[in-house]
Amino acid sequence: MSKYDIIVLGSGPGGYVTAIRASQLGLKTAVIEKESLGGVCLNWGCIPTKALLKSAQVFEYLKHANDYGLVVKEYDKDFDAVVNRSRNVAQGMSKGVEFLMKKNKIDVIKGFGKLKPGKKVDVDGKEYSADHIIVATGARSRELPNLPQDGKKIIGYREAMTLKKQPKKMIVVGSGAIGVEFAYFYNAMGTEVTVVEYLPNIVPVEDIDISKQLEKSFKKSGIKIMTSAEVTNVDTSGDGVKAIVKTKKGEEVLEADIVLSAVGIKTNIEGIGLEDVGIAVDRDKILVNDYYQTNIPGYYAIGDVTPGQALAHVASAEGILCVEKIAGQHVEALDYGNIPGCTYASPEIASVGLTEKQAKEKGLDIKVGKFPFSASGKASAAGTKDGFVKVIFDAKYGEWLGCHMIGAGVTDMIAEAVLGRKLETTGHEVLKTVHPHPTMSEAVMEAVADAYGEVIHL
Amino acid sequence: MSKYDIIVLGSGPGGYVTAIRASQLGLKTAVIEKESLGGVCLNWGCIPTKALLKSAQVFEYLKHANDYGLVVKEYDKDFDAVVNRSRNVAQGMSKGVEFLMKKNKIDVIKGFGKLKPGKKVDVDGKEYSADHIIVATGARSRELPNLPQDGKKIIGYREAMTLKKQPKKMIVVGSGAIGVEFAYFYNAMGTEVTVVEYLPNIVPVEDIDISKQLEKSFKKSGIKIMTSAEVTNVDTSGDGVKAIVKTKKGEEVLEADIVLSAVGIKTNIEGIGLEDVGIAVDRDKILVNDYYQTNIPGYYAIGDVTPGQALAHVASAEGILCVEKIAGQHVEALDYGNIPGCTYASPEIASVGLTEKQAKEKGLDIKVGKFPFSASGKASAAGTKDGFVKVIFDAKYGEWLGCHMIGAGVTDMIAEAVLGRKLETTGHEVLKTVHPHPTMSEAVMEAVADAYGEVIHL
Repeated sequence: MSKYDIIVLGSGPGGYVTAIRASQLGLKTAVIEKESLGGVCLNWGCIPTKALLKSAQVFEYLKHANDYGLVVKEYDKDFDAVVNRSRNVAQGMSKGVEFLMKKNKIDVIKGFGKLKPGKKVDVDGKEYSADHIIVATGARSRELPNLPQDGKKIIGYREAMTLKKQPKKMIVVGSGAIGVEFAYFYNAMGTEVTVVEYLPNIVPVEDIDISKQLEKSFKKSGIKIMTSAEVTNVDTSGDGVKAIVKTKKGEEVLEADIVLSAVGIKTNIEGIGLEDVGIAVDRDKILVNDYYQTNIPGYYAIGDVTPGQALAHVASAEGILCVEKIAGQHVEALDYGNIPGCTYASPEIASVGLTEKQAKEKGLDIKVGKFPFSASGKASAAGTKDGFVKVIFDAKYGEWLGCHMIGAGVTDMIAEAVLGRKLETTGHEVLKTVHPHPTMSEAVMEAVADAYGEVIHL
Repeated sequence: MSKYDIIVLGSGPGGYVTAIRASQLGLKTAVIEKESLGGVCLNWGCIPTKALLKSAQVFEYLKHANDYGLVVKEYDKDFDAVVNRSRNVAQGMSKGVEFLMKKNKIDVIKGFGKLKPGKKVDVDGKEYSADHIIVATGARSRELPNLPQDGKKIIGYREAMTLKKQPKKMIVVGSGAIGVEFAYFYNAMGTEVTVVEYLPNIVPVEDIDISKQLEKSFKKSGIKIMTSAEVTNVDTSGDGVKAIVKTKKGEEVLEADIVLSAVGIKTNIEGIGLEDVGIAVDRDKILVNDYYQTNIPGYYAIGDVTPGQALAHVASAEGILCVEKIAGQHVEALDYGNIPGCTYASPEIASVGLTEKQAKEKGLDIKVGKFPFSASGKASAAGTKDGFVKVIFDAKYGEWLGCHMIGAGVTDMIAEAVLGRKLETTGHEVLKTVHPHPTMSEAVMEAVADAYGEVIHL
């Protein structure tokens, strides 16, 4: 029986990053993976979708080349090539993780791992033991009872990124990040897309102003949006699908080739031995403390299987913290109130901290500032005037409560707000930080200025 | 004679921003402009060049559409249309400033302003007075004695952005931001471009690694680069130009249609009455203290005419600080060591703080970290793997001494480093700031991790 300091169950962005950090800290580490190294993120999530979205974005440039003084007479997309490019990018990244595992002398054990009592893991009949076992098995597409995925006409994100044929009409159920990214991609490619959202607004976790702006942009680009709406039944018996959508106005039948179900995730906690070991689970999540220890000593859990935000960067951060603690380093618990969230449709969305509504619900006295990219020189020059930056400060203490961005490239701009908030900046300090001109990032400074009545370009 | 609290001479990004802030602070303000509102930045600099560069970038997408799974059979650029778009963007921005002047009740006085003793300004024969007069007349293209600009065959940046006909061959003298931006633009448009730089490296103010990377990228895209080289003479007598370039290897004759001189700037301090008033000038710059007061009470200077970096965002920050001080606000002097600089060729460059060489020359014990975009998932997905983020920390105190970036979109990413440095962050704090995945901004976190031996993806 092989003995390790650390065994990590799952090699997604939680698992493989955890394993690398563990190895750096001198711990003998193995990672168990039943499928491809890199997990959903690298193979079926973050990375391949960004590749698809980049193709869509370039396709938009072809359509609008004229706006930039350019002439394109004959152009088209090659849907297969777009999908293949995305798969190649994913495979390249997965190979990259394989290289990192070797470089860091991490054993990769292929197979399905199942926890056993006594700090052991069974992998398809073979047993391994470790001083510390970390569960990082992630999550998968959640299925609604009235929207059972058949993988053909009612699909999840996996199938959505590898369709053999581009659908003419598509219904996207759910408008979180996954839903709106695919809605943008397929619409840009020429598919007729309808988004059905159960809640009153799309991207419902975002600040209401962001939701409204995305809805506006999406509608302008031809995406149909139905909010406060629910797919109650899908008939897949004919050539395509007939979906019954219940709205406040009554029922409507939508016809399409395909329904994409993007209604959230379900954790992968079945059959991995949690019950055998006695690890406590509540509402589909493994319960952990600040250092990701479960109720059973020697067993840990990080990433989507735990209660924090189900995001790749959260999983990575949790895993690093978990093994640093195991290695005896001084660690500070992760601040789940300062986790950025990004959506990569066009316009992009990036946000961190409280929404205006959340801040008000907490009874805080706030100052709100907003700066639209329509007033930004860089945005004008680039032809990307949609969107804005919105900031929320505590009126009394100047604390930066929230930052919400929608527009071109904002997913690369939110880090400023995350770092600023971590360092407990005040609005005044952001305002007096000289932002380079002309950039989209000036909008952060100007939004803060707006909150304090000092905005220049409005 | 009209009397103001504040008169600002010049309406560039220094002048018009100063005027707006002054007006916000309750000061009766006028701005004097001899040409177009917005100055060089809006009309002939930052903004119209970014418009040209965006067209070039989109043109690159047309050329490489195939890489993204797209098909473009017939495409071209319409050079006139590209230039017109840029002019329209500039005009739109200038109108925006006009609107801002009205909205803020700032008097715009058209004409050439000349300072007079007794806190007066003469504008083409009419006199105005103010309690505080702020000189913000900016700068223009510097002329070398052996490269006198005739505006036709030997041109400056103004002509370079409004050429009636695209040159087939172009020599760009100087490889600062202006030089390399035009080199990139014209090369992307199909002009054969040679860059001649007097110093041993292009973009010579940048960290040496940045210079090398840009040189590599430029050469790959077909731009010829001659460093440690000097144009000693240009013969414009024939159809085109014949430039004699002296290098270490000897002299070479380059033929081209046009030579663009981009060898820095010359301040606009002639004929504006500095001598009449007795305002001290040294080496082409107006001398000022931390609050932009000249040696003569009541007279101030901000922007390119003063010794700080000749950058639009510096001018704006100086102007705001200057009038806030006049209005009696508590202000902190600008930290010229924390000013970001950006170059918008492809790949973009953004940097702040000390280069590695500068840090070593100061005798500092440093930790250097570097993360290449070739190891970034987002960069792979977007097809923008050129470049890196390099960070420099003080080994003893953890101070973030410098941050140097080259790659797609980095001009919107540098704000994080500027804010972090302002807030006196340590490397550890940046490392423990959760950057969203997948973004280019993760490279900042990873570069910091590299400096501390904790990099994950290398």
